[in-house]
Amino acid sequence: MKVVRTEGALRDALTPHRRADHSIGFVPTMGALHEGHLSLLRAARLECDVVVVSIFVNPLQFGPREDLAAYPRSEERDLHLAEGAGTDIVFAPTTEEMYPAGTSTMVTAADVALPLEGEARPGHFDGVATVVAKLFNQVQPHKAYFGQKDAQQVAVIQAMVRDLSIPVEVVVCPTVREPDGLAMSSRNAYLSSEERERATVLWRALEAGHAALSEGAAQEVAEKVMEDVVESETGVVLGYARAVDPTTFGPSDGTSPILLVIAARVGSTRLIDNLPVSEA
Amino acid sequence: MKVVRTEGALRDALTPHRRADHSIGFVPTMGALHEGHLSLLRAARLECDVVVVSIFVNPLQFGPREDLAAYPRSEERDLHLAEGAGTDIVFAPTTEEMYPAGTSTMVTAADVALPLEGEARPGHFDGVATVVAKLFNQVQPHKAYFGQKDAQQVAVIQAMVRDLSIPVEVVVCPTVREPDGLAMSSRNAYLSSEERERATVLWRALEAGHAALSEGAAQEVAEKVMEDVVESETGVVLGYARAVDPTTFGPSDGTSPILLVIAARVGSTRLIDNLPVSEA
Repeated sequence: MKVVRTEGALRDALTPHRRADHSIGFVPTMGALHEGHLSLLRAARLECDVVVVSIFVNPLQFGPREDLAAYPRSEERDLHLAEGAGTDIVFAPTTEEMYPAGTSTMVTAADVALPLEGEARPGHFDGVATVVAKLFNQVQPHKAYFGQKDAQQVAVIQAMVRDLSIPVEVVVCPTVREPDGLAMSSRNAYLSSEERERATVLWRALEAGHAALSEGAAQEVAEKVMEDVVESETGVVLGYARAVDPTTFGPSDGTSPILLVIAARVGSTRLIDNLPVSEA
Repeated sequence: MKVVRTEGALRDALTPHRRADHSIGFVPTMGALHEGHLSLLRAARLECDVVVVSIFVNPLQFGPREDLAAYPRSEERDLHLAEGAGTDIVFAPTTEEMYPAGTSTMVTAADVALPLEGEARPGHFDGVATVVAKLFNQVQPHKAYFGQKDAQQVAVIQAMVRDLSIPVEVVVCPTVREPDGLAMSSRNAYLSSEERERATVLWRALEAGHAALSEGAAQEVAEKVMEDVVESETGVVLGYARAVDPTTFGPSDGTSPILLVIAARVGSTRLIDNLPVSEA
């Protein structure tokens, strides 16, 4: 496994593979790798000749009052895990390498970025779209792997790829969960053991919302069911609990599939989760 | 010469060239081709195995009170001229092909887009950056050719390529002028014969500004000289006449090269021109 820290070294590492017409699979991450990331790397390993992972805590996608400085960093452990999952190339650039002084071109995310997470985190998805567009240009992958866990991010990336005709196939892999249902997230590391138990309320709420829809409840009723589950848990503050169209993140018109999405603050840690529902 | 109208047909036309590792040269245009465009096509022809030109009047780069509907369209003539200049593939998509319903991801141009043309035409450079980013992804050229005539556009594209790590070499070709100095522009077609004569005032002003700098005048003095030349011509309204840093389009600090830039309205037609000056 090669670790490269500059765009030039990345291009050098990829050139022989491009010459040999190898398929390139790419997993962009902010490090602090967990089973969710590893499932993406394993999917890329199965489908592609070369597997590239980027590790870059992207300052553009953090708001001024968010956890950029505190975000967990564990490069040595990440490299070990990435190698175990079959990674060929790790791209771990510095902030100065990615955004040299004077950098100012941005990608403004599609309209799907506006509600929910977009409202809670102004500018977040523009930062995500910008870094992913840049990483796509640096790696030029055939396939790029994203987790369903960050469903609105997936929708933003899919819209960007479509709107800007980026020549990459976006592959979405299922959310990986702890045995008790908590979605894997690097931010779970912030939780105290008490908060860790309370955090399962997001999954419990999604399951309750799903059950309500399965029993024929209207979307608004399912949303209320999810809210009630979250509000029954102490130390947890609801952000939103909604049934949305998974492409627009606006209200579902009932004909398209429904995505249940939820955000809540557990102690001081903001968590998100979602559950695709095949039928209303 | 092949004419294709969809992204799919473009990719099909380019696939054999990519397989054969041919170098691809690309000239994005809005049609209404003139000698300026043809000089770009000839440069691409000399340097690349395959020459692609796009003809697309991009609505995103026109303001609500600008000349989108009136912009000159002459496809039959354009195809004839493109073929004569050695073009292999013409990509002439419809607006619906480029921007299907729901398209909303944008590229926000770098800070160099803010002054001068950016002030005169809000949103213009975001529209340019977005369409050029998309065209780059569709064509995936090795080299892309732009005219020095649109100097601030060149700076915006160069910043975008650098900031987003787009794998393309931007080639800038000199402005092509009429014998009396008027820079070639599709918008010259709007000029009455009287306005056409007055329009040479942009070039006369640039030459006077250049002469002043050569004689040791300060940049502010050269700007005043250019203004005076423009204001001496009847029926012409000055937009700006400035000496700028060609990378930032802010004031030149005197150590970098100077670019003289000018904009003026001749009758109802807004024209721009510029002149790179190697020394202060």
